[in-house]
Amino acid sequence: MKKYVFQFKEGRASMKNLLGGKGANLAEMIHIGLPVPPGFTVTTEACTRYYKEGQKIAEDILEQTFDALRELEQETGKKLGNPDNPLLVSVRSGAPISMPGMMDTILNLGLNDETVEGLARSTGNRRFAHDCYRRFIQMFGNVVLNIEHERFEDIISGVKKRRGFALDTELGAEDWQDVIEQYKNLVLKHTRREFPQDPREQLVMAIEAVFRSWNNHRAIIYRKINKIPDELGTAVNVQAMVFGNMGEDSGTGVAFTRNPATGEKEIYGEFLLNAQGEDVVAGIRTPRNIKDMAALMPDVYRQLTDVCALLEKHYKDMQDIEFTVEKGKLYLLQTRNGKRTAAAAVKIAVDMVKEGLISKEEAVLRVSPEHVVSLLHRRIDPEAKVEVIAKGLPASPGAAWGHIVFDPDEAETLGQQGQKVILVRTETTPDDIHGIVMAQGVLTSRGGMTSHAAVVARGMGKPCVCGCDAISIDLEKEEFRVGDLVVKKGDIISIDGSTGQVILGQVPMIDPVLSPEFKELLGWADEFRVLSVRANADTPEDARVARDFGAEGIGLCRTEHMFMGQDRLPVVQEMIMAETKAEREKALAKLLDFQRQDFEGILEAMRDLPVTIRLLDPPLHEFLPNAEELIQEIAELKAAGDEETLKRKQEILKRVKALGEFNPMLGLRGCRLGILYPEIYEMQVRAIFLAACSLAKRGIKVYPEVEIPLVSNDNELKLLRELVENIAAQVMKEEEIKVDYSIGTMIEIPRACITADELARYADFFSFGTNDLTQTTYGFSRDDAEAKFLPYYIDHKILTEDPFIVLDRRGVGYLMKTAVGLGRGVKENLTVGICGEHGGEPSSVEFCHEIGLDYVSCSPYRVPIARLAAAQAALKNKKNS
Amino acid sequence: MKKYVFQFKEGRASMKNLLGGKGANLAEMIHIGLPVPPGFTVTTEACTRYYKEGQKIAEDILEQTFDALRELEQETGKKLGNPDNPLLVSVRSGAPISMPGMMDTILNLGLNDETVEGLARSTGNRRFAHDCYRRFIQMFGNVVLNIEHERFEDIISGVKKRRGFALDTELGAEDWQDVIEQYKNLVLKHTRREFPQDPREQLVMAIEAVFRSWNNHRAIIYRKINKIPDELGTAVNVQAMVFGNMGEDSGTGVAFTRNPATGEKEIYGEFLLNAQGEDVVAGIRTPRNIKDMAALMPDVYRQLTDVCALLEKHYKDMQDIEFTVEKGKLYLLQTRNGKRTAAAAVKIAVDMVKEGLISKEEAVLRVSPEHVVSLLHRRIDPEAKVEVIAKGLPASPGAAWGHIVFDPDEAETLGQQGQKVILVRTETTPDDIHGIVMAQGVLTSRGGMTSHAAVVARGMGKPCVCGCDAISIDLEKEEFRVGDLVVKKGDIISIDGSTGQVILGQVPMIDPVLSPEFKELLGWADEFRVLSVRANADTPEDARVARDFGAEGIGLCRTEHMFMGQDRLPVVQEMIMAETKAEREKALAKLLDFQRQDFEGILEAMRDLPVTIRLLDPPLHEFLPNAEELIQEIAELKAAGDEETLKRKQEILKRVKALGEFNPMLGLRGCRLGILYPEIYEMQVRAIFLAACSLAKRGIKVYPEVEIPLVSNDNELKLLRELVENIAAQVMKEEEIKVDYSIGTMIEIPRACITADELARYADFFSFGTNDLTQTTYGFSRDDAEAKFLPYYIDHKILTEDPFIVLDRRGVGYLMKTAVGLGRGVKENLTVGICGEHGGEPSSVEFCHEIGLDYVSCSPYRVPIARLAAAQAALKNKKNS
Repeated sequence: MKKYVFQFKEGRASMKNLLGGKGANLAEMIHIGLPVPPGFTVTTEACTRYYKEGQKIAEDILEQTFDALRELEQETGKKLGNPDNPLLVSVRSGAPISMPGMMDTILNLGLNDETVEGLARSTGNRRFAHDCYRRFIQMFGNVVLNIEHERFEDIISGVKKRRGFALDTELGAEDWQDVIEQYKNLVLKHTRREFPQDPREQLVMAIEAVFRSWNNHRAIIYRKINKIPDELGTAVNVQAMVFGNMGEDSGTGVAFTRNPATGEKEIYGEFLLNAQGEDVVAGIRTPRNIKDMAALMPDVYRQLTDVCALLEKHYKDMQDIEFTVEKGKLYLLQTRNGKRTAAAAVKIAVDMVKEGLISKEEAVLRVSPEHVVSLLHRRIDPEAKVEVIAKGLPASPGAAWGHIVFDPDEAETLGQQGQKVILVRTETTPDDIHGIVMAQGVLTSRGGMTSHAAVVARGMGKPCVCGCDAISIDLEKEEFRVGDLVVKKGDIISIDGSTGQVILGQVPMIDPVLSPEFKELLGWADEFRVLSVRANADTPEDARVARDFGAEGIGLCRTEHMFMGQDRLPVVQEMIMAETKAEREKALAKLLDFQRQDFEGILEAMRDLPVTIRLLDPPLHEFLPNAEELIQEIAELKAAGDEETLKRKQEILKRVKALGEFNPMLGLRGCRLGILYPEIYEMQVRAIFLAACSLAKRGIKVYPEVEIPLVSNDNELKLLRELVENIAAQVMKEEEIKVDYSIGTMIEIPRACITADELARYADFFSFGTNDLTQTTYGFSRDDAEAKFLPYYIDHKILTEDPFIVLDRRGVGYLMKTAVGLGRGVKENLTVGICGEHGGEPSSVEFCHEIGLDYVSCSPYRVPIARLAAAQAALKNKKNS
Repeated sequence: MKKYVFQFKEGRASMKNLLGGKGANLAEMIHIGLPVPPGFTVTTEACTRYYKEGQKIAEDILEQTFDALRELEQETGKKLGNPDNPLLVSVRSGAPISMPGMMDTILNLGLNDETVEGLARSTGNRRFAHDCYRRFIQMFGNVVLNIEHERFEDIISGVKKRRGFALDTELGAEDWQDVIEQYKNLVLKHTRREFPQDPREQLVMAIEAVFRSWNNHRAIIYRKINKIPDELGTAVNVQAMVFGNMGEDSGTGVAFTRNPATGEKEIYGEFLLNAQGEDVVAGIRTPRNIKDMAALMPDVYRQLTDVCALLEKHYKDMQDIEFTVEKGKLYLLQTRNGKRTAAAAVKIAVDMVKEGLISKEEAVLRVSPEHVVSLLHRRIDPEAKVEVIAKGLPASPGAAWGHIVFDPDEAETLGQQGQKVILVRTETTPDDIHGIVMAQGVLTSRGGMTSHAAVVARGMGKPCVCGCDAISIDLEKEEFRVGDLVVKKGDIISIDGSTGQVILGQVPMIDPVLSPEFKELLGWADEFRVLSVRANADTPEDARVARDFGAEGIGLCRTEHMFMGQDRLPVVQEMIMAETKAEREKALAKLLDFQRQDFEGILEAMRDLPVTIRLLDPPLHEFLPNAEELIQEIAELKAAGDEETLKRKQEILKRVKALGEFNPMLGLRGCRLGILYPEIYEMQVRAIFLAACSLAKRGIKVYPEVEIPLVSNDNELKLLRELVENIAAQVMKEEEIKVDYSIGTMIEIPRACITADELARYADFFSFGTNDLTQTTYGFSRDDAEAKFLPYYIDHKILTEDPFIVLDRRGVGYLMKTAVGLGRGVKENLTVGICGEHGGEPSSVEFCHEIGLDYVSCSPYRVPIARLAAAQAALKNKKNS
């Protein structure tokens, strides 16, 4: 017969899936000799059967439960329901993965009108016994019988009022008896049944209630958010009661073995004298700092610190424990790995290595890369009380506050005057760049994670909240509305680009610092990882940040962002408006100087390291004003009769329309531009090599890697490789110096993956552009998908993840693997990396390690995360192989 | 030593690659005993070496040439350059694939100041000899020495004028001597060298000129258009002269063994008495019908008809021959398979089967599917002289003429009055449908092969020329301009949607008929093909046409085209403008009736055959007016102060903007719509099954196949399969009758191909949507690519074909093959077809056969082409295996 019920002493920590976390750890503590009240666990498999069999507990499981109960009675020498020597138990849920929202605890189960008297006699404490009973009815009534908590509280308040008391502690045994009678009436009225007096019935009902709570609304939501499978089920722990409410030598509390906020090695927690567990939660009495126990109960405190040390040594991790002291004797009711802040996680992992508790490998594996993201950006003080008025997409991480401004020109003026401003726009265009530059952050009501605002803000490392459609902007009135709330120009808001939150007013913020421990941990990570980590950076400033964070090169330098500068944009527009090649070349000549300076800056900042420079990628119309705005302007100008401006605008509109595309993502961009307008790429390549040569002359070692974007067939690459080689040779000859360089391609089109063997013949390196590759593999336009249907898809489990955030291994990953195999088949030493945003996402980094990439490249602020994730991938892979 | 020169008698027809077509066929004719003047061929490999070795003929090749010459001298008993008995030769080019534009012929080579006298003596005809010499200098001067043809003609004109003659025939021997002197002076002046007197030098120069002509501009262009590899090279044929200009018992001519226009079995051609070959071409004298020879030269004519019969029997194909008669003796100078019209090709193939010349298989293989396209549409009479004023994209085949109209309302009105109109628009939108319906054809200046106009016109089977950017439309003035030409409303134009031509005025047209021979040939094709052939049809009319053309089912019925009807569009817009599900359902209820009728019509038309009905695919904004136009209207309404209309338009604009997408191709469309708005798909599925049940009740067998578009992961399909199954079951229960049906999916996203094993679990059939699959595999938006960079790519050989026309086997094909393998791996009996436009393109059909698809589906008018292509694929495959 299958075993559905385990005595605590039969279990071990390793049996978490079967016994749940709480049950497995109680078993483990008994195993290592810690004082744990005896009990047993009904397994998660029993829960699964409960649901399979139409929400009924099967007979065999009930039998095993009562067998276990009998054994518990023997061990404690008490008996459930025996008025002379009643056994009381607690019933607690315990899933394999800790999960708030489920039924927590029923204490004192086993009490009824008779056993309560027995308890009074055996403890000699009538008030205590009746207090226990009323607590039991209250908890049972609430969690098993679904009677609102307030209804019970109202009854106590009524009695206190009648008796003129302020505090619960003033109530005596008779008062509690009065309360109990009223409680029982409440139960009768609510359930049309008497409060169950049979303790076995109580037990079965409680177990069922735990099973049911697995599928209550809060638990389902929690599982969805945390991606916990619905099939796991919960276990139920039935444990002999110990009482913290038996006088001033009793108490109850929770403790962390280290400070969960800072990671300091010190016992941290709180306790209450003469109380049962839920009193701490209820917040009726203010708990005391655990350190006060040292004076109040010196023996117990010493014992507790010993237990903490033992548990840490045993579990090799910081523990979060619950304990009860009954008449001077310490009992442990729970231990689990304690939740902690990112900073604490880092410090604890590093400290534990130094204490010899864990290895460096374990320390590296223990810190979640996603968790430490928060340490790398300015953030809203988690202690602060904030009023979130709206939520948009978390488009560029970090937090900022400022006076809101709707006009980019005004943002620039005020910003230059030193005022902090947040630029609020429906969406941004290249014409707004000067405003974004001077703003603390950007908030838009339209556009997704790759909208102009998002891309530009991420590029500048500025916080940005995008597509916040809850706010409706009135540009004329210079205000926005959220429901009834009107926020006007000049009002202060705070935004958090890591969470998408928009907050009214200024909130306290915390600046990022890499703690010495974090640096040490990353150093260890570097020892283990196989993947190299580069950064995506478009400016010397970004490059420097990336280098400080440990980047070993630039994996993607987007030259188009250099086109967006306020001094360059008019020249870029001049180039685009050019109607002949000669006119275009004139404008390009002006851009050459700008680009040379750009490249010189970034190459110098990355001296001794490789810098992958991608030639112009976006469609040209991205550099021109928006067609719709122009049409409106033109209609207005016609009415106003301003012939000259009208004509100019009409010219621009004509060009905008000529360049306009139905699906710009799939249109004239990337290498297609370079092929149709070779003079643009020629200018860029010339600028790269002028910069490289000039640095080389100053003795600075540079490694430019010229990258051709959006290649879908080998002839494109062949042609452009020739172009690059020709210009490079020409410039190096003119400058009379040689520099090392290589030429490669982005792999971001399915066909490029499939024909990677052909491409490899003309490429020294591949770099996966997984943003675009995801778009084409899925047929999803990211902006449209994230705005229109991806949230629904994820909500309804059609997709488990946003494939633009977590790399889709099944589809996109398959194509990547194909490309790596085909490419290396032709060219063994082909360098292969990734520069899509996935390059900084831990699970995607793991996949990149698995398929043998050489490097990942991500935003500068994600470099430490990628270093950690790469190390974890290598360590996990080593383990598994 | 490698052999670079072959005597005619050493060759065979099979050596075409080495000897060129002309040389190989001369050899073959000698082999079968026909009278061919002797000669030799310098091979194509000699040409290749000529280019490899810096445009120089190698010594060993020259040696072999002179050896061959010696042999020729022995055979003829004459000697090149011998004044007593001069050998004269012709030098002609001959590439492996017949190619106009290359150097054609030099006759009479070997003449110089001395041999001309020898020729005069040996023939006893001074005038003849000097005429030959001047002809030689003229041809040599023109094609070898690059002297303009007119310069020579001017000299003859001068002499005639001086002598008061009108015709060349009036000139005597002395006059020709005069001409020759002037010719030689012209050569000296032009080349600063005397005309070469050494016949061997003449020969080498002529051979070099043939080699050079391989790379002249016209030849290069021709090869590019006809996709002939540049590496083939041309051979040179040197042949002893025979003379058609030796009196009234001599002559020269060309003949086809059957009528190349109609295919009738009759000798067809023309000839000239007393003339050399180039006189026919020069057009100085009007040639006579070949049949006149029967009376003029009865013996020679009988001989000629015998030769024609023999050649057809030998080559098993209609031949195009050149011949010369010298003093009553017939010589053949060339034979080749004759070019013919599509109608003739079909008739000749079928007739030859009946004559026992070829098998049915050969007949089927002999007719090019692309060639017969012209037989399936109305077309411009190829005999007509037309003035092409512009060329656009051939967006929907067929030809039409009409008065031009710029306004769809006017097109509707005039059309209803019975006037023929051509609708001319910048681009069309759904609002223009009523105008398109009543027009003969559509011409747009913007948009590609999948633009609204193109798709709608193809759907209606109406001619359409798209993206004709040479015309600039002025809607206000109601005119368009092409360069200086202004074409006004009411003017007549003709358009040819098969070629993209726009022609001023009305031109004669030919209506399509399937000839009995064509029907017979298609019947044979059906015996051989493995692939089933279906049609893409959206209306009962289209379905009937398709069935008449032999379609075995509907492979794609696009339900959205039914939404575009003028009576439906307002209801569709009402549905889209709905702000609540309830409002949307109200509009959908109205659409249900329309759709039920649509489906009933198409299912009835295809009784007994399967009909694949695709659920709604395009983004909803395609059914709304254009945002830019609305913005302009609104700006104008604001100025005009029409508050009410303004408000309504603003509402629509709001919705248009809300639905607007950055990349609609990759946005909220296909099954994504069906998932977010299940009520739309529910209505469509209900309509399908109401229609099917109603027909079933009338005893009509129907096989609806419900198709889910744009699936990229299995959960989408799983969910929608359930939806379809539920509604189907519900309707069949209500209607109390069962119908057979199946559920499948379009495979049009790379990820669908990669995860086809997962999809196959929820699909009874796959249908490749290769239009979209090509877009996503290449990262090409078809509209943008064809408008912006594909033409450049093809011109510059970056791509050899437009992948939207010819299926890209390397990329898209790889994904298709992967999908077929994965899908059938899971479900052996999975039906797999293709419904992209490639389904009617012969090379793509061949690929579909090779990867084992069950059917191809194409536009109704392409069904015969697909039947033929499918048969050819099966026959070729059988041959190769």
